[in-house]
Amino acid sequence: MNAPNPAAQLQPRPVPLALLDALGTRFGAQFSTAQAVREQHGRDEGSISAPPPAAVVFAESTQDVQDAMRLAAQHAVPVIAYGAGSSLEGHLLAVQGGISIDVGRMNKVLSIDADDLTVTVQPGITRKQLNEAIKDTGLFFPIDPGADASIGGMAATRASGTNAVRYGTMRENVLALEVVTASGDIIRTGTRAKKSSAGYDLTRLMVGSEGTLGIFTEVTVRLYPLPEAVSAAICSFPSIEAAVRSVIQTIQLGVPIARVELIDVNSVRMVNAHSRLSLREEPMLLMEFHGSALSVKEQAETVQQIASEFGGQAFEWASTPEERTRLWTARHNAYFAAVQSRPGCRAISTDTCVPISRLADCLLESVDEADASGIPYFLVGHVGDGNFHFGYLIDPESPDERARAEAMNHRLVARALSMGGTCTGEHGVGVHKMGFLVDEAGAGAVDMMRAIKRALDPQNILNPGKIFAL
Amino acid sequence: MNAPNPAAQLQPRPVPLALLDALGTRFGAQFSTAQAVREQHGRDEGSISAPPPAAVVFAESTQDVQDAMRLAAQHAVPVIAYGAGSSLEGHLLAVQGGISIDVGRMNKVLSIDADDLTVTVQPGITRKQLNEAIKDTGLFFPIDPGADASIGGMAATRASGTNAVRYGTMRENVLALEVVTASGDIIRTGTRAKKSSAGYDLTRLMVGSEGTLGIFTEVTVRLYPLPEAVSAAICSFPSIEAAVRSVIQTIQLGVPIARVELIDVNSVRMVNAHSRLSLREEPMLLMEFHGSALSVKEQAETVQQIASEFGGQAFEWASTPEERTRLWTARHNAYFAAVQSRPGCRAISTDTCVPISRLADCLLESVDEADASGIPYFLVGHVGDGNFHFGYLIDPESPDERARAEAMNHRLVARALSMGGTCTGEHGVGVHKMGFLVDEAGAGAVDMMRAIKRALDPQNILNPGKIFAL
Repeated sequence: MNAPNPAAQLQPRPVPLALLDALGTRFGAQFSTAQAVREQHGRDEGSISAPPPAAVVFAESTQDVQDAMRLAAQHAVPVIAYGAGSSLEGHLLAVQGGISIDVGRMNKVLSIDADDLTVTVQPGITRKQLNEAIKDTGLFFPIDPGADASIGGMAATRASGTNAVRYGTMRENVLALEVVTASGDIIRTGTRAKKSSAGYDLTRLMVGSEGTLGIFTEVTVRLYPLPEAVSAAICSFPSIEAAVRSVIQTIQLGVPIARVELIDVNSVRMVNAHSRLSLREEPMLLMEFHGSALSVKEQAETVQQIASEFGGQAFEWASTPEERTRLWTARHNAYFAAVQSRPGCRAISTDTCVPISRLADCLLESVDEADASGIPYFLVGHVGDGNFHFGYLIDPESPDERARAEAMNHRLVARALSMGGTCTGEHGVGVHKMGFLVDEAGAGAVDMMRAIKRALDPQNILNPGKIFAL
Repeated sequence: MNAPNPAAQLQPRPVPLALLDALGTRFGAQFSTAQAVREQHGRDEGSISAPPPAAVVFAESTQDVQDAMRLAAQHAVPVIAYGAGSSLEGHLLAVQGGISIDVGRMNKVLSIDADDLTVTVQPGITRKQLNEAIKDTGLFFPIDPGADASIGGMAATRASGTNAVRYGTMRENVLALEVVTASGDIIRTGTRAKKSSAGYDLTRLMVGSEGTLGIFTEVTVRLYPLPEAVSAAICSFPSIEAAVRSVIQTIQLGVPIARVELIDVNSVRMVNAHSRLSLREEPMLLMEFHGSALSVKEQAETVQQIASEFGGQAFEWASTPEERTRLWTARHNAYFAAVQSRPGCRAISTDTCVPISRLADCLLESVDEADASGIPYFLVGHVGDGNFHFGYLIDPESPDERARAEAMNHRLVARALSMGGTCTGEHGVGVHKMGFLVDEAGAGAVDMMRAIKRALDPQNILNPGKIFAL
């Protein structure tokens, strides 16, 4: 298992003044080299730092992205797309220098095709903005990473979240893309048809490519009819194992549960403090059921019965939208609640995902190890998918804490890989997990990724130094 | 719209005797240059012909595939993987010469992981063999193209079938692959985890690559719990339009219907004759509902109500497994029933797929055109996905009929593309649809596919002359 070594990726390339001049001339007030702007665009929510990009372009159209890309390509200068800045793995860091293209202003809904259950948006729109824009259609977009991330960024990292157990991830829900390539050309991938066998699946190749194969300028995603009925429930368990075994059985029985989140006792305490709740301080599952009124009732009864067999108690219902929103907001705020619980700390997030049959084993060994470490941590999990996150809350000034937390992460990844799992279920590789990719995918598969990268970006200017070293 | 020109792909390359000698030495009785064997491996179920491959290797292991691939690579000779031979688009034709690697003997189930709802198989196992092998697990594999295709071939063409409306296609259901590359190396793509953000999605790049990027030697796919309850129904409609509008409304309402197939009146007649049935000779929908007993009842009631609003009648239930099997066998035999209805004919199959809101428009214009042509045809459709197939039953000795049928297909594809659809929902491009790909994807996207192909197969020996010209 190779330790990721972000420092090894720090190879800033020179950014010629001629490029900065050309960008300034072309973009005027949409261009900035101000220190504060550069610094804002040179970091994300992860635990790693790097010097900021040399400049930032605020793109307002596909043409803007194309022009900036062409200028950068002329000078062989790296380009990093910036959406909402919510990456956890160092995706936005200018480890090889270059410029940032901020697509946050490209946040329009271009076409709502409610009859086809699709919508086409610009990449900078966030998932909450999207759902607000379509709220009168009776449809919704289910993918919900913790942060209010941009749709472009979510596509780039193959994001998912709490609804993925039923609705899939960005892999399943992006139908088509408009992409600006490394040479500044514009291509379209996919169509609005629900399925296709027409050639290589460029859409799926682009989804999860972390800005290294192209910059997305339009994204077409699937929508779903708002379920006729929704009910949410929380259930406390005597142990994490009991909670997890309930989930495993629920999934194996094929119950079409929409969400099932594990929240450990540390997280419950942090969330109670942050969101002024009084959740019972035990490991809990937060669940949601979607469907017809009858189906929702039936699903919930099945799961309640399974849970009670594993000692689950205090099965509490949240049937009004307000109660549900309160619970899920608490869940989505878990990360921020945790970070605030130790002032000045940074969270090192893990993101392993294993086949469901191995979930209990993988989780429990890792909990024992985290407990023994003495490092404060929280644990939340999209357990229906076999995916869970530890957040080790380290003092960023303590090399010892960082090293111990990273060592735990390494052991956790090794454990997940030995069980047929992955080092990252939804956060992406970025800089932080580069050391794991060869262990997971094998040298041959990573070489194949490199060959594709070289073919599509021969100058290595699209977010270089991410996913793998070239 | 460029007409596909299979003849333009006919560029047989020499196969050196030294290669045939080396293959004979290495493979002994697993190697054949017999005319009958070569001819059997040089055709598929489609309407196009080409000279056969120079030889056939019957692979029995990954090592066999690797060794054959390495020898072919040394001599820069094309290699075509052969599974069940059921392609409809000329995928198996040796248009540039070379050798065929038949993986039909590699038909073992390697690992049933019932607790994780996955199974790993060799590529030559057919979908029916797979379901037979797992029948005691309480699980099933839903993807069902018309033919009893091999799992490897289904992955290679991104196949789907009647269950895709609920369970997705091979795109959604292949989790991981073992692949022999153009250089004869072995890589693994993906893991058994349900989701991952670890680098480029090589699994999805390989799925649908039609043998042009690698030869699959292991395939891991998802399984699903057999539903607690299943019911099937047929419903006749006064017109195709009425049937299609019922489907559109069912999908837009989010009813989780498992299968919904359109069968036109021509197909009903052919199926009645072939399978000795007495189905009412009107356009019909053949439907299936999966879920709990309550959910199935509720879904069926909703759909029955929608259908009756559109004049659907004779809603008949098939609730025993025997009745259901009889109906679905009839549906799956539609292609063969049709081909037998005109002795000596060949079917030119269309495969367009459009956004569901455009389905009625696309279908009805195309039916009018087919009726006016005088060429016998049948029409079946996975209409819940917006995908449908005309089969134009032409006299293969009549260049005029072929030209008129192909011209109809061209107009149909143009119509589908103008509606945001695709030229192929599930059959793949092969040789037959190469002319359509640029119209659909655009020159830039096809150039990106070519760049990937060149990077991964610099000698262009993996099933050359398919998908796009290099």
